[in-house]
Amino acid sequence: MERYLKIYREKRRILKAYEYFNWIVNWDQETEAPDRSLPYRTKQVETMTEEQYRHMADPDYVEAIERLYERRDELDVDLSAEIRKEYKDLRIIKRVPKDEYIAYRVLTSSAPKVWAEAKEKDDFSLFEPTLERIVTFNRKLVKYLETDELKGYDILLDFYEEGFSTELYDTFFEHLRTELVPFVRAVTDEHRKHRFSRKLKGVFPVEKQREFAEYLKEVLHFSGVLKESVHPFTSGVSSTDTRITTHYDETNFTSSIFSTIHEIGHALYETQNDPKYDDTFLHGGASLGMHESQSRFYENVIGRSRAFWDTHYARLAQTFPKQLKNIGLDEFYRFINHTKRSLIRIEADELTYALHVMVRYELEKSLIDGRMKVADLPKKWRTLMTRYVGKRPKTDREGVLQDVHWSSGSFGYFPTYALGSAYAAQIRFAMAKELDIDQAIRENRIKDINDWLKERIHRYAAARTPRELMRLSTGADFDPRYYVDYLRDKFALTQD
Amino acid sequence: MERYLKIYREKRRILKAYEYFNWIVNWDQETEAPDRSLPYRTKQVETMTEEQYRHMADPDYVEAIERLYERRDELDVDLSAEIRKEYKDLRIIKRVPKDEYIAYRVLTSSAPKVWAEAKEKDDFSLFEPTLERIVTFNRKLVKYLETDELKGYDILLDFYEEGFSTELYDTFFEHLRTELVPFVRAVTDEHRKHRFSRKLKGVFPVEKQREFAEYLKEVLHFSGVLKESVHPFTSGVSSTDTRITTHYDETNFTSSIFSTIHEIGHALYETQNDPKYDDTFLHGGASLGMHESQSRFYENVIGRSRAFWDTHYARLAQTFPKQLKNIGLDEFYRFINHTKRSLIRIEADELTYALHVMVRYELEKSLIDGRMKVADLPKKWRTLMTRYVGKRPKTDREGVLQDVHWSSGSFGYFPTYALGSAYAAQIRFAMAKELDIDQAIRENRIKDINDWLKERIHRYAAARTPRELMRLSTGADFDPRYYVDYLRDKFALTQD
Repeated sequence: MERYLKIYREKRRILKAYEYFNWIVNWDQETEAPDRSLPYRTKQVETMTEEQYRHMADPDYVEAIERLYERRDELDVDLSAEIRKEYKDLRIIKRVPKDEYIAYRVLTSSAPKVWAEAKEKDDFSLFEPTLERIVTFNRKLVKYLETDELKGYDILLDFYEEGFSTELYDTFFEHLRTELVPFVRAVTDEHRKHRFSRKLKGVFPVEKQREFAEYLKEVLHFSGVLKESVHPFTSGVSSTDTRITTHYDETNFTSSIFSTIHEIGHALYETQNDPKYDDTFLHGGASLGMHESQSRFYENVIGRSRAFWDTHYARLAQTFPKQLKNIGLDEFYRFINHTKRSLIRIEADELTYALHVMVRYELEKSLIDGRMKVADLPKKWRTLMTRYVGKRPKTDREGVLQDVHWSSGSFGYFPTYALGSAYAAQIRFAMAKELDIDQAIRENRIKDINDWLKERIHRYAAARTPRELMRLSTGADFDPRYYVDYLRDKFALTQD
Repeated sequence: MERYLKIYREKRRILKAYEYFNWIVNWDQETEAPDRSLPYRTKQVETMTEEQYRHMADPDYVEAIERLYERRDELDVDLSAEIRKEYKDLRIIKRVPKDEYIAYRVLTSSAPKVWAEAKEKDDFSLFEPTLERIVTFNRKLVKYLETDELKGYDILLDFYEEGFSTELYDTFFEHLRTELVPFVRAVTDEHRKHRFSRKLKGVFPVEKQREFAEYLKEVLHFSGVLKESVHPFTSGVSSTDTRITTHYDETNFTSSIFSTIHEIGHALYETQNDPKYDDTFLHGGASLGMHESQSRFYENVIGRSRAFWDTHYARLAQTFPKQLKNIGLDEFYRFINHTKRSLIRIEADELTYALHVMVRYELEKSLIDGRMKVADLPKKWRTLMTRYVGKRPKTDREGVLQDVHWSSGSFGYFPTYALGSAYAAQIRFAMAKELDIDQAIRENRIKDINDWLKERIHRYAAARTPRELMRLSTGADFDPRYYVDYLRDKFALTQD
């Protein structure tokens, strides 16, 4: 046991250094590196990946993980969680034929380009053969990895959200289907009547938006690096270094505000991890869904609340005195919570967002189960969008071709987006029993909220599963009703 | 032969990837990483250094270099230069007892802190025992490495500037002593009469200085990343990715202008390396002196020329309309070429700079030869500064404690600074035979100058020694007279 632990810890130390390399190169690439440097950088990354792989595939290391996994009950809770995680990652190396897997990696590294061209030309048939091959591999993959407990699409879902299967997701989405879909229809009908001042679509200088983003960092108590990139993202490597980006659009000033708050939510999760996890594979978050729950909590529960703008609208109006002249807090609040039936997921509002995800969930499920053909995707997409979101795309570019995920082989990823918002609502409900959230927001004591989340969720990093974290933080299993109740409450109010 | 070449090339590919890691981590650390992330980052860097060292010390690799070195005459010119370079680097591993060397590395990694405290407290005695140990090691080091051709201080000089020995440097500095010292005395006396508008010391907003720095990038045809750091520097990893920083001081606006131009000079050298060297150890520059010659060429020969500001002063005045109102081009030009006897090397002007270096050269030479004791440094420093620069420091902080170099063990480094300026003057003389430099500058055709330097110097990277490059670019060996002539010319003119 001691010998295996020693091998494990020594290799972990080395692998963490390679992880650091990948982290910093990616960060640099997305935020700063000149395009022309890509070929050179790619070569270095390839070499480093070989070096890293050599360590990961070291038979002594693999054996150590397997032996420790067998005796995981004798390990402390952190180490046991970590070994379980590493053991799970070994499955692919052990069960999938190496050449098939490499061929798949090659395929999915070039497929996003094929997808981008198909989207650009609005021609699904250009992407179809590639997607066909990706889906075929994933159907085989789930066969290779299946166990007595997990089969089919459940395997992929479990990749991204441990312990979440179609059984749980079906219940979740069924609830949205019966409760949320009709509600969204009513609210979006109502919101059609909203009229906003043209000034809200005016020009808001980027320099001033940057200034306000710095203000948001202070308000939310995030002190990491904030930079700019085409698509906002969070990139963390340790509790002492978690960085975010945002994107400034001169004619859409609320976009950078909410993307900044969203990414700060992700970032606080990681900076508030217990530092003891920095040197382990547990640093980060428990799952994609849990991560998204934090970003959505900050973005929507805090950032789109009336309480938040009661306190901070004056500062915003002061930052944009000309642009927001005569725009009152009421109108601004209605503006940032305006909801409508739309076609593009990443532009969808808080109320309708999960329905976009539901479309993707149903399609993925039938695709992986083999009940649906890739060729039928565009048609089926239109049908489901019309049914759930209430709007029918006219083109595939605005439909099935809008997202990059499938081209990189990410099946089972989308559902975590909706789950995150639903977690956030349930967490909010639990938090409210111990903390007057609106009052804390209004009195600019976001720190109290940060502390609550740190204590109940953040500090555990990935040492607990998402299901355990829901129990630890809310005292109950995940229940989608909180989410629908939260949306009903919030959008019933703004409807008035 | 083929076998050794294969081993060599394969290992080189791997080592280049580690080099890339070090490069990007350093860049990030100097420009962006939060201070609190230092301990975590240090751990990763240490791990990666072990990994890298393991590759470098691989006996197969060492053997390949030795065998290829023996048969270097059969290799092409590039490979032969590269192998010579790598073989040279092996000397330390092979000849210096490992534990002594490691002890020294440990010493010099902590010594800069000791130095900083001594400087802060203006107390040389706090630094003296540490410096004593560093000097003692260097005296031993030159014994370990001595050959029939190279002995003593010459070994250290050759580290930084291949082919340059005390014999050459003595001639160089002797020329400065007899020709430059009296001239500087006369010019600085004359310049004491200069009076400048107080506005030139006013407040120049950083945002506007940034704008002008971007303009300078365009004028000089440099398109790499420009960021900010406490001390400006250039950091390149390949011909496609060379980055620079500058530092903006609100009350010293010319500082960022000339540091930006200086760093662009360094950067152009590396971006204009033949891209074929990117994958070799030859990418970069031939030597410190050659590198400095390029930065000084751009900073002084171009950037402080009348021709440059004939063309660009209007733009500068437009950037700072209030600050530069009523400041004419004549006054500005006099201001940026004003020279005086000063104490601090890094603040010294073009005319007096080399004399600061001469002080250090003489001290280093006597220290390494053992003719001088460390304890005598402060007194000897005062004497030489008074003799050469004409100003006597009252404190050690403004004297022997001002520079960090010796605390990190860099003996033999300083002389390359002066050599760089002298190279630049000789290169200018050669260039002027083929190109009307002032006219090119005035007509905003810096590209012609870039091209000339690329063709004669930059493209060769480190595949030629500095002495070979001087012959290639100027048709002659290095000759310090060009430098003194250039300064006499320039400062005689502005004296009027």
